[in-house]
Amino acid sequence: MNTPSEKALVPFVSVDNMMRLIHHIGVEQMLRDLADYIEDDFKRWELFDKTPRVASHSDVGVIELMPTSDGEAYGFKYVNGHPKNTAEGLQTVTAFGLLADVYTGYPVLLTEMTILTALRTAATSAMVAKHLAPKGSDTMAMIGNGAQSEFQSLAMKAILGLKTVRLYDKDRAASEKCAANLAGSGLETVICASPEEAIEGAQILTTCTADKQCATILTDNMVGSGVHINAIGGDCPGKTELAKGILERSDVFVEFPPQTRVEGEIQQMDDDFAVTELWQVILGQKDGRTSDRQITLFDSVGFAIEDFSALRYVRDKVRDTEFHYDLDLLADPDDPRDLFGMLQRAG
Amino acid sequence: MNTPSEKALVPFVSVDNMMRLIHHIGVEQMLRDLADYIEDDFKRWELFDKTPRVASHSDVGVIELMPTSDGEAYGFKYVNGHPKNTAEGLQTVTAFGLLADVYTGYPVLLTEMTILTALRTAATSAMVAKHLAPKGSDTMAMIGNGAQSEFQSLAMKAILGLKTVRLYDKDRAASEKCAANLAGSGLETVICASPEEAIEGAQILTTCTADKQCATILTDNMVGSGVHINAIGGDCPGKTELAKGILERSDVFVEFPPQTRVEGEIQQMDDDFAVTELWQVILGQKDGRTSDRQITLFDSVGFAIEDFSALRYVRDKVRDTEFHYDLDLLADPDDPRDLFGMLQRAG
Repeated sequence: MNTPSEKALVPFVSVDNMMRLIHHIGVEQMLRDLADYIEDDFKRWELFDKTPRVASHSDVGVIELMPTSDGEAYGFKYVNGHPKNTAEGLQTVTAFGLLADVYTGYPVLLTEMTILTALRTAATSAMVAKHLAPKGSDTMAMIGNGAQSEFQSLAMKAILGLKTVRLYDKDRAASEKCAANLAGSGLETVICASPEEAIEGAQILTTCTADKQCATILTDNMVGSGVHINAIGGDCPGKTELAKGILERSDVFVEFPPQTRVEGEIQQMDDDFAVTELWQVILGQKDGRTSDRQITLFDSVGFAIEDFSALRYVRDKVRDTEFHYDLDLLADPDDPRDLFGMLQRAG
Repeated sequence: MNTPSEKALVPFVSVDNMMRLIHHIGVEQMLRDLADYIEDDFKRWELFDKTPRVASHSDVGVIELMPTSDGEAYGFKYVNGHPKNTAEGLQTVTAFGLLADVYTGYPVLLTEMTILTALRTAATSAMVAKHLAPKGSDTMAMIGNGAQSEFQSLAMKAILGLKTVRLYDKDRAASEKCAANLAGSGLETVICASPEEAIEGAQILTTCTADKQCATILTDNMVGSGVHINAIGGDCPGKTELAKGILERSDVFVEFPPQTRVEGEIQQMDDDFAVTELWQVILGQKDGRTSDRQITLFDSVGFAIEDFSALRYVRDKVRDTEFHYDLDLLADPDDPRDLFGMLQRAG
């Protein structure tokens, strides 16, 4: 083997090493850390290079690239969304990501992001709920008990002090899986027979279902005043979870309006439907929750800056640890003009 | 270590394995093969999902993502362009790429693409020259003798039967490096003291310089009738190599007009400046070279479909060989809804 130069090597975090890293840090601590990194990047939102994700749609799913940059680092995530995959024993969503140095263009981290995306999505939800949910929220309805449900529940516990999760899924086995996984976490779980039962007494309503169709997981008459809705599942054109009437009665908060208007719950509304950008709430420039009776709604679709925050965090954490190894990804000849000579000498 | 499922593993071709693969196949054979794959994809140009590359510019360079899909496979390349890197001992361009299955969204190949891009760029130039250069072309002026120069020369030899390369670079050491690397290739090399000397007797004029500025490597009076110009170096806004007068006298052929009008030599011209799309020439729908006195000009900027062809080729070639190893890149729990359970059990 030809020994590559140090510059040619890119630290790689495999799925196995990501799981080791999470257990090393502790999943709740990592959710808190990620929420802090994400909140820090929301606070400097304006300096990021923002663009809606680049999507390649097919009949059965979508493959997306989500790039962004803060001027010093550049990050992107590859992510697919294939709702039909679950029935074939595959993940609906898989992802990996990369961080690079803007000054040289050289990648500095390649990492799995299927698990990391689950963590950052949950950390974002909880960070936003910290700003918008009623004070003292201790009960969440978790509607849709798939791959994201445990992460959402633990993030709300770690960051908001949630005590009880009321679980509903059209497939009771999913709720049982979620309850079993959360046993021993310190969260009380209650499996419910209907969405109506799940939302009883809950201050936070989280919807996270995966059908690629306009569904109505929450109908208008189910949602009373004073709650915070954390709408996760509607995240591409044609995929929504909430009745339009709920949006009309709520104050809606979004990540990046040009993307959310296409992909989020508000795709059901006119293009001038009023929304508030979360970064402005976090900076104190705009109001978040202003009354106990208000319905706040986080129309979450997932934005590249959240992945960027997660990539920054992993880079900072794996440095000087065993939770990565180096990939010989970049050709780096001694004389940069002599790429061919490097190839020739390898022969 | 937790043993990942087969679906979770993505074949990875490192720089070292790419070099082994190239030597195993032979560099000239691989250039011919790549030209065939690229030509095949130009022939089915219309069915591709085409989008201009997604670029993130900074003061010192650019980082780009170049995605495309033929409906069955999806590919993208990460590539940077940092002209100042050479002075710091780094590559101007580094790249890696990925191929995925559109039906599942799962990646099926990750590979270095710094070397592969050099090969596909040269293979594209030679495939295009096969259609446009004067019959019997045996001499090329190679102006700019950096990392791409040997690949261009060998591709023209392998695909067109080029016999002589006349080298010019403002830094003579670069020409000497190129000549030394091509010694024994069967190509005659002549190091020239000026661009004017380099183009003497050449039917093909290749420009491949790297300054990010509007330069005039070829002036109008240097270019006589009956030549084919292969303009490689102008490939981003503000970076051109040819005098405007040459463009006015030439028939200009391009990959994807919306991208070339921004990045290519024709950024100097009006938006309605007439160009011919290469895929139409290759399919016989449009004329290529129609007379001995015509100047044909390939305004090359590099398009995602060429990378897609190269990714397809590497996928086909490394299958059932030792020139790759598997990366544990994708989290793939037995029950797709139980991502958290997989994480928990790894603890």
